[in-house]
Amino acid sequence: MSSSSSKSAGVITCRAAVAWGPGQPLLLEEVEVDPPSAMEIRIKVVCTSLCRSDVTQWQSQAQPDLFPRIFGHEASGIVESVGEGVTEFQAGDHVLTVFIGECQSCKHCESGKSNMCQKLGLERRGVMHSDQKTRFRVKGKPVYHYCAVSSFSEYTVVHSGCAVKISPDVRMERACLLSCGVAAGIGAAWKVADISKGSTVVIFGLGTVGLSVAQAAKSRGASRIIGVDINPEKYEKGKVFGVTEYINPEECKEPVQQVIKQITDGGADYSFECIGDTNIVSTALQSCCDGWGMTVTLGVPKTKTEISTHYAFLLTGRTLKGSLFGGWRPKSDLPSLVEKYSKGEIQLDELVTHDIPFESINEAFNLMKEGSCLRCVIHMPK
Amino acid sequence: MSSSSSKSAGVITCRAAVAWGPGQPLLLEEVEVDPPSAMEIRIKVVCTSLCRSDVTQWQSQAQPDLFPRIFGHEASGIVESVGEGVTEFQAGDHVLTVFIGECQSCKHCESGKSNMCQKLGLERRGVMHSDQKTRFRVKGKPVYHYCAVSSFSEYTVVHSGCAVKISPDVRMERACLLSCGVAAGIGAAWKVADISKGSTVVIFGLGTVGLSVAQAAKSRGASRIIGVDINPEKYEKGKVFGVTEYINPEECKEPVQQVIKQITDGGADYSFECIGDTNIVSTALQSCCDGWGMTVTLGVPKTKTEISTHYAFLLTGRTLKGSLFGGWRPKSDLPSLVEKYSKGEIQLDELVTHDIPFESINEAFNLMKEGSCLRCVIHMPK
Repeated sequence: MSSSSSKSAGVITCRAAVAWGPGQPLLLEEVEVDPPSAMEIRIKVVCTSLCRSDVTQWQSQAQPDLFPRIFGHEASGIVESVGEGVTEFQAGDHVLTVFIGECQSCKHCESGKSNMCQKLGLERRGVMHSDQKTRFRVKGKPVYHYCAVSSFSEYTVVHSGCAVKISPDVRMERACLLSCGVAAGIGAAWKVADISKGSTVVIFGLGTVGLSVAQAAKSRGASRIIGVDINPEKYEKGKVFGVTEYINPEECKEPVQQVIKQITDGGADYSFECIGDTNIVSTALQSCCDGWGMTVTLGVPKTKTEISTHYAFLLTGRTLKGSLFGGWRPKSDLPSLVEKYSKGEIQLDELVTHDIPFESINEAFNLMKEGSCLRCVIHMPK
Repeated sequence: MSSSSSKSAGVITCRAAVAWGPGQPLLLEEVEVDPPSAMEIRIKVVCTSLCRSDVTQWQSQAQPDLFPRIFGHEASGIVESVGEGVTEFQAGDHVLTVFIGECQSCKHCESGKSNMCQKLGLERRGVMHSDQKTRFRVKGKPVYHYCAVSSFSEYTVVHSGCAVKISPDVRMERACLLSCGVAAGIGAAWKVADISKGSTVVIFGLGTVGLSVAQAAKSRGASRIIGVDINPEKYEKGKVFGVTEYINPEECKEPVQQVIKQITDGGADYSFECIGDTNIVSTALQSCCDGWGMTVTLGVPKTKTEISTHYAFLLTGRTLKGSLFGGWRPKSDLPSLVEKYSKGEIQLDELVTHDIPFESINEAFNLMKEGSCLRCVIHMPK
């Protein structure tokens, strides 16, 4: 019902892209969206970009009972109404959603050095943090959430700790990219690895996350940014984000880590696993140097969940770090990234390969499955 | 031989404990020790302690062709003569040997942030770095070195970059412990993990290395130092080094990492793998907390060389680091550790469970195999 969404007794009836089973094309359904409970806000979604993890989770057979489900977690929108106790937001505020929240009162939030909020951490069971229930119904059945965001809906409900206010001047159809993938890549480079000037960086996978690592490495003054990807077209895009050299592992006569060691005199200073392939973590570790080499793993694997490597690669002084959302604390840190985008210090527009109307959302899923897009931005009806 | 060692044409004939094959008891043999080549020094060994890696390598079937061989790498001694070009040492200087050297001119040494010297790194082929030859002969056959140190001999030859001068006031029969294991443990805590005041530390394995981590954690003001070991006797010793709590994993009803998570409200700040068991690395990683937990792996595994863990333990913000010799640069950093020992700021004496005459060196090997010693100090004839 899109722009004609109706409100009654606090419940909004609107359209959402509902997945009825793993890998099944989304269907645009009429759903009921509950009013926000205490400390929650209801948002009119403006734009939502498709992240690889939406597709991975949609394809996964691991939680077949969490259907019907509404995916989507990279989103910008406007607050429609607020629940009891919410003072931070009011109707009309522009916001970004975040897939991990920040309660600002637990041990982790208070530490100032962790984004692993104990109250609003990654929600894996398809419900809201506060009461383990859903806020959506379709044909009378509850609809499960995804990461407590579920932005593939004209309206959604999120905890107020899972949204960040942004200026009305910020371009919502692009800022939504900062909700997940781009922030993850930039944070891995700036906050987790803390790349120093003049250093050599290797990036495995030149998707949105990898290219975001590249732009962040470039802004830190990295002297060499080596992109590794099996798709040569990615190098052209990579140059826009600071990639200085390209290696196609399928064209190497030796293992790619050997090639990298040779061209970098012993290995890079930093390497980043941005593919989501656990087998590449050891390759990335071997691609950085003894003594101070650091590998950051960002990807969520599609299949094998075990990371395995020879102990000697660590014993010789390497560091392996992981991070979710680039280590950023969403509420504390995301506003500064949005500001950098506004000032032209972070490139987002160049990552958007497709603008797609909500009605064609399955097209975005197909493009991502084929690997023939970076970010597809899905525009909700006005 | 021994105190009656003879010198002729620069060659010294003396006694050494020679291993003739993997796991075969050492035999005290008369060996010839060449004079030092350019940039090398010949040392009269005073004391040498037995490290677990001597025993591991001696037992290993991996390099059967590197016998006969002289093991030993934790040693103190007195410079007997110096080779051409050596200006840093002169006969009579007191020194510690080191199993990784520092040339002070390669990329790694010059970086100031690595101890992975490209010229004098870990020597694995049983020869000297400079010419790939040995400096020992027994019954006319060349005798292989170990880590380019080979201190189980009355005299040995090392590169001048693999020795560190110490004050004649320092107790040589204890300072030798700083040549490897103790420095490795202290460095893991101070230099690699950089333990902060008030933090919670878990140590897997309360041998010499683990207890050295403990004393370093204590001196940094760690609030809890939890020792994990299957031998309850280790806790008594552990208390001397600052261990505040003890867990015997064999007595736990749940996996030890669960127990640690419970008693530490989500996991420790730091964990250390000091056993040399790659399977424990993942346990250690799970024993530290999301967000900022750090695991340092120090052990050299006796069997399985692959470290394996679920990606999620990293993605949630943990760091896994390895280090050799605690990350210390041997020449630059070891003197300050020796000084701290002299000032009573580092405990070494308490780690020595046995003082053993050179003639009884096999006893030390047996004690280490049985796990019934910490450090055995082997005293060479005066």
